[in-house]
Amino acid sequence: VAVLEARARLASVRESELAVQLGGAAGTLASLGADGPAVVAGFAQELGLAEPALPWHTARGRIARLAAALAEAAGATGKVALDVVLLAQTEVAEVAEAAGGGSSTLPHKRNPIAAVRARACAARLPGLASTLLAAMAQEHERAAGAWHSEWEALRDALALTGGAAAWTRESLEGLEVDPERMRANLAASGDSLLAEHVALLAADGGGRLEANAAVRAAGERAAGGGRTLREELLDEPLVRDAIAPEDLDAALDPAGYLGSADVFVERALERHRAEQASR
Amino acid sequence: VAVLEARARLASVRESELAVQLGGAAGTLASLGADGPAVVAGFAQELGLAEPALPWHTARGRIARLAAALAEAAGATGKVALDVVLLAQTEVAEVAEAAGGGSSTLPHKRNPIAAVRARACAARLPGLASTLLAAMAQEHERAAGAWHSEWEALRDALALTGGAAAWTRESLEGLEVDPERMRANLAASGDSLLAEHVALLAADGGGRLEANAAVRAAGERAAGGGRTLREELLDEPLVRDAIAPEDLDAALDPAGYLGSADVFVERALERHRAEQASR
Amino acid sequence: VAVLEARARLASVRESELAVQLGGAAGTLASLGADGPAVVAGFAQELGLAEPALPWHTARGRIARLAAALAEAAGATGKVALDVVLLAQTEVAEVAEAAGGGSSTLPHKRNPIAAVRARACAARLPGLASTLLAAMAQEHERAAGAWHSEWEALRDALALTGGAAAWTRESLEGLEVDPERMRANLAASGDSLLAEHVALLAADGGGRLEANAAVRAAGERAAGGGRTLREELLDEPLVRDAIAPEDLDAALDPAGYLGSADVFVERALERHRAEQASR
Amino acid sequence: VAVLEARARLASVRESELAVQLGGAAGTLASLGADGPAVVAGFAQELGLAEPALPWHTARGRIARLAAALAEAAGATGKVALDVVLLAQTEVAEVAEAAGGGSSTLPHKRNPIAAVRARACAARLPGLASTLLAAMAQEHERAAGAWHSEWEALRDALALTGGAAAWTRESLEGLEVDPERMRANLAASGDSLLAEHVALLAADGGGRLEANAAVRAAGERAAGGGRTLREELLDEPLVRDAIAPEDLDAALDPAGYLGSADVFVERALERHRAEQASR
Repeated sequence: VAVLEARARLASVRESELAVQLGGAAGTLASLGADGPAVVAGFAQELGLAEPALPWHTARGRIARLAAALAEAAGATGKVALDVVLLAQTEVAEVAEAAGGGSSTLPHKRNPIAAVRARACAARLPGLASTLLAAMAQEHERAAGAWHSEWEALRDALALTGGAAAWTRESLEGLEVDPERMRANLAASGDSLLAEHVALLAADGGGRLEANAAVRAAGERAAGGGRTLREELLDEPLVRDAIAPEDLDAALDPAGYLGSADVFVERALERHRAEQASR
Repeated sequence: VAVLEARARLASVRESELAVQLGGAAGTLASLGADGPAVVAGFAQELGLAEPALPWHTARGRIARLAAALAEAAGATGKVALDVVLLAQTEVAEVAEAAGGGSSTLPHKRNPIAAVRARACAARLPGLASTLLAAMAQEHERAAGAWHSEWEALRDALALTGGAAAWTRESLEGLEVDPERMRANLAASGDSLLAEHVALLAADGGGRLEANAAVRAAGERAAGGGRTLREELLDEPLVRDAIAPEDLDAALDPAGYLGSADVFVERALERHRAEQASR
Repeated sequence: VAVLEARARLASVRESELAVQLGGAAGTLASLGADGPAVVAGFAQELGLAEPALPWHTARGRIARLAAALAEAAGATGKVALDVVLLAQTEVAEVAEAAGGGSSTLPHKRNPIAAVRARACAARLPGLASTLLAAMAQEHERAAGAWHSEWEALRDALALTGGAAAWTRESLEGLEVDPERMRANLAASGDSLLAEHVALLAADGGGRLEANAAVRAAGERAAGGGRTLREELLDEPLVRDAIAPEDLDAALDPAGYLGSADVFVERALERHRAEQASR
Repeated sequence: VAVLEARARLASVRESELAVQLGGAAGTLASLGADGPAVVAGFAQELGLAEPALPWHTARGRIARLAAALAEAAGATGKVALDVVLLAQTEVAEVAEAAGGGSSTLPHKRNPIAAVRARACAARLPGLASTLLAAMAQEHERAAGAWHSEWEALRDALALTGGAAAWTRESLEGLEVDPERMRANLAASGDSLLAEHVALLAADGGGRLEANAAVRAAGERAAGGGRTLREELLDEPLVRDAIAPEDLDAALDPAGYLGSADVFVERALERHRAEQASR
C-alpha cells in the first residue's frame, strides 16, 4: 500500500505538476508581444505537459514536488527491499530470491542481489532530494547556479527511482518463501511474540504491570534454561490462576492471534484491485 | 503563487495524510480482538486526524509527504527572503525592511534581519527532509532506530518552516519599496535589459545572429566609453536601417516592454483572491 | 579501529581547528587599530582555543571539518550499533544487551535499546552535516542567513554524536555474547562460509571456474535435500579427486580457516593500547 | 586561505587515507593463508596507495574523510564563486569575468558564467556527502546496499569538486576588477561603513550607546535628505564635541581605516608562497 500511495503521488505529480516553462528573459514573455499566453498554451499541448498559470522559472515548487514524489517512491520500494534482505539472511532464511546471485568469493552463497541493488538505488534519493530542495533558493528571475545544479540531480533521481522500482520487482518476482522455516523461526522465538497475548489474558486476574512482570520472569527463565515458555508460565501463580491450561495452549497458538490482520489484508488487496481496474 | 501552491500542498497533507497510527506489536491489533478497526476509527475521530486504511507503523510515506510539503513551503518562502536580501543590498537598495536592524558593529546600517532569519530557517529544511526521507527504510514492523530518528527532525522541520513563514511575513509587512531607486538602477543597467527588444526589432531587417552581434557591439562600446547605448545603437548600420530613431526611443522604454506581465499579475491576484475567499 | 580513527580525527580538529574568530565588521579589526593581531592572540589563550592566522568569519572550513569529524564519529559508532542490532535479532541471537529493554507491548522481548538509540542519533548526522556543508556558501564578509543556520545544526550535531557514542558504550558494556549460539549458527550456515576454502583447494586439481561450479552444485543439493554439504561435496568428482576426505574435514573446520585474523586482531589491540597510553 | 586549507586537507587525505582494501570474504584474507599481510603490502605498493593496518571493507571512515575533504574544497571554491556572482551583479559591477557569457536572450549582458557553473557544481556536494556519510552504516563485513550506493556518489563528488575548482579558476583568471566602481560604491554606501569608526571616536567623549545613537540618527537623516553624512554628523553635538572637523574627514576616509588588513593580507600571501615552494 505504501508503494501504491507513492505511485499515486507520482502519477498526480506527472499529470498536474509537469508544466511547460516559457517566460523569456524577465518572465514576462515580452518578446512575444500580446501573444504570450496563447503561445504557452500551444507549447504545452504540443509537448503533452500541463499549462502553468504563470511562468515558474524560479518558482521551483514543481521540481520540489517531483523530487519528493520520487524520493517517497524510492523510500517505499527501499523498505520492501530491506525486508527482503533481512528475511534472506542466512540465519533467518525465510525468503530467497529466485535468481539470487552467488557471491564472487563464496560460490555457494545465494545473496539477494536484486534487493541489495534496489536498496543501493534508494539510498541515493535522500541526498538528491536535499540538493533539489536546496536549489529552490533561486535569485530573482534568473538563478546563478541553483538552476544549473538541478538537472543532473533530477536526472539521477529519475533513473535511480526507476532502478529501485525495477530491482524490487526483480527481487519479488519469483521470491521463494519458506513457510516451514517461518514456522520454525516462530516456534523458536514465537512463544515470546505471543507473550503479549498471555500478559493480556493474565491481566484480567490482576494488574497489567504484575501480569507483565510474571510473563517476563517466565520468559527469562525459558530463555535461560531448558524448559519451554509454556512450562515456565504455568509455574507463575498469577498466570496459572488466570488462564486454564487449554486456554494457554490456545493463547500460544499464533494462528489464533491474528487480530484484524484479515481485515487489513483485504483492504490492501481491495486497493490494489481498484488500482488495477482504473488503469 | 509558489507560496500559495506550497500552502495548498501543506493543507492537503494536513487533511488527508495526518492519520492516526494504531497497530499493536505486530501491526495486527491482535490485542483488541475483532474490535480493532472500530477502535482505530474512534481514535481518529477523537484526535481530529484521518483514519488510515491500514496501520502504517513502518510505511512512512505520510511522514515523507509531510516533510516534503514543509520543505517546499520553506523553500518557497526562502526564495522570497533571498530576493529581499538581494534587493536590500546597499548597492541595490530597492527595498528596505520597515524594522530593519542596525548591525551591532555598524550602527547606521539597516540589515534586512527578518529576511536573513527566514533564510536561516529555510536553509535547515533540505537536511531535515533528507533525514526524514532516509528514515523510510524501517525494518519489518518494528524499526530499529529509523523511527526514533524521526521525531526531533520532524519537530524541527515543523518549527523551522513556521519560522521561515513568520520571518518572511515580518520582512514583507511594511517593506519599503523605492520606485525612484528602481528606475535609477534600470536606467543605469536597464538599457541592456531592453537590448533583447532592440535586437528583436533589428532582426526584421536582417538575420537574428547579425542583429544580436550589432546590439552586443554597441553595448560593449557604451559600457566602455562615455556615450549612451542609444547613441551607440544609432551608429550600427543594421540597427539604424531597421529602426527609426523615435521607434528606438520607444523600444528603449521599459514601460513599453512588459509583454504578458499584466496577464500574469492578474492571474496571480486571482488565485490569491480565490484562496482568501475559500477560507 | 574505525572508532579510534574517528576519535583521532575529532581530537585533531579539537586541537587545531577550533580557533577563535574576531574580525570586526569587515574582518580587518579596524576598530582595534594596530593592536588587532595581539588582541586575537590573547583572546585565543583566554578561551583555550587555537589562534587563527586570519579572521575566518565567512571561511567556514573549520566548521565543515568539525561537522565532518562528528559525522564520521557518529557513522563509526552507528555501524557498531547496527551490527549489535543485527546480531541481537531473535533469529540470530548471538548477542544481547545487558540492560536490554522489554518492549512496551511485548513484555518478554529483550530489545537492544541502547544500540537502537545509538543508531537513531547517528542517523541524524548526514543531514546535519549536509546543512553545515551547504552553509559554507556565505556572502562576502557577512553571510545573510547561512551563518545563522549553522548554530542549531552544529549544536545538534555535537549533542547527537555524543549521544551515539554514549549509547554505543552503554550497548557494548556488558554485552552478552553467546559463543554457543555463534557456533550453532555457523554450523547451520557455516559449511557454506567454508565453501570458499574448498573451492580454492579443489581448484588445484582443475580450473577455478570448474571448482566453483562443483562446490556451488553440491551446496545447492545440500540446501535442498537432507544430506550435509560434506556428503554432497564428496559426490563431486572434481572435489573428490582434489581433496582427501580427511583434508576435506580440515577444510570445513572454521577454526582452521582464520587467515590473517590473528595478525589483524593484534594490530587493532596494539592501536588501542597506544591510544590508551598516550592519554 | 580557505581554499589552501581545503587543498591541504585533500592532499593529506590523498596521502594517508586512500588505502588499498583487500580482505577476502570475511575480512581475514583466509584464502591467502599466512601470506595475507605481505600481499596487502605489495598490492599497496603496486597501486601507489597507502597500506592499511586492517582490512576496512565496512569501516568507511576513509570514504567519509575523502567525501568531507571534497565537500570542504567545493564549499571553499563555491564561496569564492558566490562572491564573484554578487560583485558582478549589474547594480554592483565591481568585477566582470574576462570571458563572461552573453545571455542567450539578452545579447548585451555579460554573465559571470564560470562562477555560476562553479556554484552549480559546488551545490551538489552537500547532498552527495550526506549520501556517503549515511552509507557508513554497513552491515557486518558485507554491506547490503550501502556499499553499492557509494560508487556513483563518490565518482560524482570527485568530478563535481574538480568542476567547481576548474570553473572558479576560469572565473578568477583575468577577472576584471573595477577600482573606480568600487570607490564609487563605497562613496555611495561607504560613509555608513565608516560609521563604526566615527562612533568609536565619539564614544571617547561619552558612552558607547549614546555615540551609536547619535551616529545612527545622523545616518538616517543623511539617507533621507539631501545632505551628506559628514554634514549631518557635524550637527550632532556629541560628535562635534568629540571630533574636530579635520579628524572627522580622516575618520571618514576608508584608506585610513584598514585595521590589521595589511597583516592579514601578508599572512595569506606568506601561506600561499610556502604552499608554492613546497610543491
